[in-house]
Amino acid sequence: MQLLALKTEHLAASTVHVGATAVGGPELALMAGPCAVESFEQMRRTADALISLGIRCIRGGVYKPRTSPYSFQGLGEAGLEIFRAIKRETGLAVVSEVMSVTHLEQAADTFDCFQVGSRNMQNFELLKELGKMRKPVLLKRGLAATIEEFINAAEYVLSEGNPHVILCERGIRSFDPLTRNVLDLASVALLKQMTHLPVIVDPSHATGKRSLVLPCSRAAVAVGADGLIVEVHPEPEKSVSDAAQALSFDDLAQLVAEVEPIAAAVGKPLPQAEYSFEF
Amino acid sequence: MQLLALKTEHLAASTVHVGATAVGGPELALMAGPCAVESFEQMRRTADALISLGIRCIRGGVYKPRTSPYSFQGLGEAGLEIFRAIKRETGLAVVSEVMSVTHLEQAADTFDCFQVGSRNMQNFELLKELGKMRKPVLLKRGLAATIEEFINAAEYVLSEGNPHVILCERGIRSFDPLTRNVLDLASVALLKQMTHLPVIVDPSHATGKRSLVLPCSRAAVAVGADGLIVEVHPEPEKSVSDAAQALSFDDLAQLVAEVEPIAAAVGKPLPQAEYSFEF
Amino acid sequence: MQLLALKTEHLAASTVHVGATAVGGPELALMAGPCAVESFEQMRRTADALISLGIRCIRGGVYKPRTSPYSFQGLGEAGLEIFRAIKRETGLAVVSEVMSVTHLEQAADTFDCFQVGSRNMQNFELLKELGKMRKPVLLKRGLAATIEEFINAAEYVLSEGNPHVILCERGIRSFDPLTRNVLDLASVALLKQMTHLPVIVDPSHATGKRSLVLPCSRAAVAVGADGLIVEVHPEPEKSVSDAAQALSFDDLAQLVAEVEPIAAAVGKPLPQAEYSFEF
Amino acid sequence: MQLLALKTEHLAASTVHVGATAVGGPELALMAGPCAVESFEQMRRTADALISLGIRCIRGGVYKPRTSPYSFQGLGEAGLEIFRAIKRETGLAVVSEVMSVTHLEQAADTFDCFQVGSRNMQNFELLKELGKMRKPVLLKRGLAATIEEFINAAEYVLSEGNPHVILCERGIRSFDPLTRNVLDLASVALLKQMTHLPVIVDPSHATGKRSLVLPCSRAAVAVGADGLIVEVHPEPEKSVSDAAQALSFDDLAQLVAEVEPIAAAVGKPLPQAEYSFEF
Repeated sequence: MQLLALKTEHLAASTVHVGATAVGGPELALMAGPCAVESFEQMRRTADALISLGIRCIRGGVYKPRTSPYSFQGLGEAGLEIFRAIKRETGLAVVSEVMSVTHLEQAADTFDCFQVGSRNMQNFELLKELGKMRKPVLLKRGLAATIEEFINAAEYVLSEGNPHVILCERGIRSFDPLTRNVLDLASVALLKQMTHLPVIVDPSHATGKRSLVLPCSRAAVAVGADGLIVEVHPEPEKSVSDAAQALSFDDLAQLVAEVEPIAAAVGKPLPQAEYSFEF
Repeated sequence: MQLLALKTEHLAASTVHVGATAVGGPELALMAGPCAVESFEQMRRTADALISLGIRCIRGGVYKPRTSPYSFQGLGEAGLEIFRAIKRETGLAVVSEVMSVTHLEQAADTFDCFQVGSRNMQNFELLKELGKMRKPVLLKRGLAATIEEFINAAEYVLSEGNPHVILCERGIRSFDPLTRNVLDLASVALLKQMTHLPVIVDPSHATGKRSLVLPCSRAAVAVGADGLIVEVHPEPEKSVSDAAQALSFDDLAQLVAEVEPIAAAVGKPLPQAEYSFEF
Repeated sequence: MQLLALKTEHLAASTVHVGATAVGGPELALMAGPCAVESFEQMRRTADALISLGIRCIRGGVYKPRTSPYSFQGLGEAGLEIFRAIKRETGLAVVSEVMSVTHLEQAADTFDCFQVGSRNMQNFELLKELGKMRKPVLLKRGLAATIEEFINAAEYVLSEGNPHVILCERGIRSFDPLTRNVLDLASVALLKQMTHLPVIVDPSHATGKRSLVLPCSRAAVAVGADGLIVEVHPEPEKSVSDAAQALSFDDLAQLVAEVEPIAAAVGKPLPQAEYSFEF
Repeated sequence: MQLLALKTEHLAASTVHVGATAVGGPELALMAGPCAVESFEQMRRTADALISLGIRCIRGGVYKPRTSPYSFQGLGEAGLEIFRAIKRETGLAVVSEVMSVTHLEQAADTFDCFQVGSRNMQNFELLKELGKMRKPVLLKRGLAATIEEFINAAEYVLSEGNPHVILCERGIRSFDPLTRNVLDLASVALLKQMTHLPVIVDPSHATGKRSLVLPCSRAAVAVGADGLIVEVHPEPEKSVSDAAQALSFDDLAQLVAEVEPIAAAVGKPLPQAEYSFEF
């Protein structure tokens, strides 16, 4: 049986729309934001920074999957409220993680794209529920997931009727303690060759080191990724989580500047900067 | 903050009871059964074989987490019905996997121990729900989970108030295609030294090869595991899943015979064989 | 003690010259050739293809480290003879692997750059011998070598007095059978940030798949590599080894064309094409 | 072509003799000693401890493969002299690492068994040279070597005419920083099933933690290993290398005591303790 995720004669490339951001289309898709939603002011400052760079999709965790149950678990409902205000005021689209059907129900009206994190890539019951919805799903690769398992996880969503799946490479687990994970960019090329699904890259979680985010973003675009999702924070050193990998706004502007000529070179340019949102 | 899972001056070793099987006590705990529940006859034959070997806990999947959505997903409600009949007729305790809160509710009256599979080791929402119950939880190590992450996953259950957690080493993902996974027995010793939780080993999923299950069972007992959970099937070659690793009843009898002197040598003998259940 | 390999205030970037190819300088360095030297005709055809693309350094194994002792072990002395003829006729520089001090002595007059393969990255006795020479050493990262081990292996050469070391990322071993290895491009950025040594990438061995070589070459240049070393063969499907990953001459021309704008974008352009060698 | 290493109808199990120690025979083989030879007094005290436990083979590095060129590289010739004195005075056999053909020549009269370390498992030129000798070779598995590669590395020795090869599992590289490596005991069972070569286990390097050496030794014997090679030091905390994993003499006595009943249970008992050597 041919998987729905696989490329066919008739379907070479799907485009998934997250608000005004087309992922898998002719332009590079950019998403950015902090690891966790901490306050309205933090998100509003971030939103303004994104808008100034032509980025129309903001990320940030409201439900945080943390290794320890005693670590900050996200703002939950208060975070949803912040996201609703940000959307109202800026028109940005929101991508954020859900970890259960309950989250799905709570956040259905707020999130424009449901992220499934690497820990839940094979949480098949969650994937089936997402398959019954018609909203985009950003599926992150598991830390030890093969490409075959990754594609089959997407198939759990697709086979339930939801075609709006974006794949995201975010690093696999390996042996070197110097980096958080190993960014597997060949997998991006492979996924683009095998499937019709859009594939984006998260260079922040993949490397865990601020200094590696820019070069790896350039490489991700060069290898053929459809987009990037990047951690940025108004004051990276004050981030409640993942402080070591968050970019400053200046770093993000630099990232956009460095990625721009690569994007042009591979024929997937940045969206027109003259983005204007009426509010 | 000291994790609840860690050994303390006052709590060196916990015992978790799954029906008549004490896991973490002075005797070795044995659990066995097929990968998936396929039919009443399959389970009844398996139950009889277990009873004849003094094993009082049967395993088998009713909800199957499969890589592909098109693979057999388990019998669901019909499987629960089979388990209830088996319990009624034989008095065996049942350990079986749940993958969502819905499964938890459906199976609460049937399963004596909820298994969390490696794919869901960091499905924190599920772990929190299990923490609110008072039934044993068999938590399998994720394919790429560090010991620290494994202990913290257990902590999600413990911190909600459920102290009945059994850890299970079942192989980690590595590079050699000859075996399904790499059985990490040093981790068993490490977990026994660090935590007070019972630790058992699944040599079937760890190796994926029938010929390796017996030697690895011996090794698991020698390293200090509190028990074994093993795949066995009336007709291994006809198993709907994991056929390559399932033992026959004769193999299982051989396993018990080989493990017995090792168990005695490490001071954790097999339960008395003169197990008698009135029915 | 500060390692000689590490970047200092006074030494930010070293350039290593392999014949006319400067590795680590302002231009991107390209090296290509077959896995193994098979015949003069094969190497001459390859040399001509390289020259037509402005590539001045040819690779090819004369001493082949093969998993099995019964596999083709390289032409040895006959291969050296072929290389000498190629150099005489075309002026190309030769980079090729040595696996022992004996090879070093035999090939000293023929090879312009000694390659140390991933299997011998920690063959310290060989590295020390190479440290006593004044010829460039192309040191490939071991399949399971950390960055720290990789840098220390280079230090074995440097500490003996030979400063001409080029590092080469060629994929690390991981769990997915779909690709031969995992290309770790973040390590390239990290090595460039930590050391002053030139760093190049071998996308052929890293991926083992022809279709991945071009996208990974683009990514390698984008991440900041100083060069590429690529497998190419006049008739890839007839290659005695590594047939699945060798490019055709047309593929190589396509690679150069695709890499060119990326190289320009990151400020490390391809060498001037109007290369002219008098012979 | 059938590899010489593989089990055949006519050759199910080879025994390799290292002095008075038969590896692969009916009794368990034990080898122990410090990581590095540091002084005559250190080795003599170690030798006496071994003799008192019935162990007839001493290990210790004279040529040390160290990650950094600036770390202690072994005593070299002075270490050989110490070993010769130890042999003269105690009659123990010596197993020690060689890293090059030069070492081989220097140590040929001193070492009773040449160890090839994990870093050199695929140093094929060294293996071929060892194949031309008639002394036992203890071949350690590479950190990222598959079973197939490991067997083929042994084949490099066997195919040159030297049948005296002992395989040694010593841990593979993985992702968890809590242990130095992952001890892969299933590989021991697999190697015993596939090949006729003796297989021993090094629990010291495999785990890197003193507290794990005893349980892993028990497990290694239970899984079917033909022997153990263990790090022991008169004053572990003063060891110049690998201090965290070296056992004290008391630990080693405890190890022998714990292993003894397991060895009996699997039918490979410890050698008779009434070892008497005339000197």
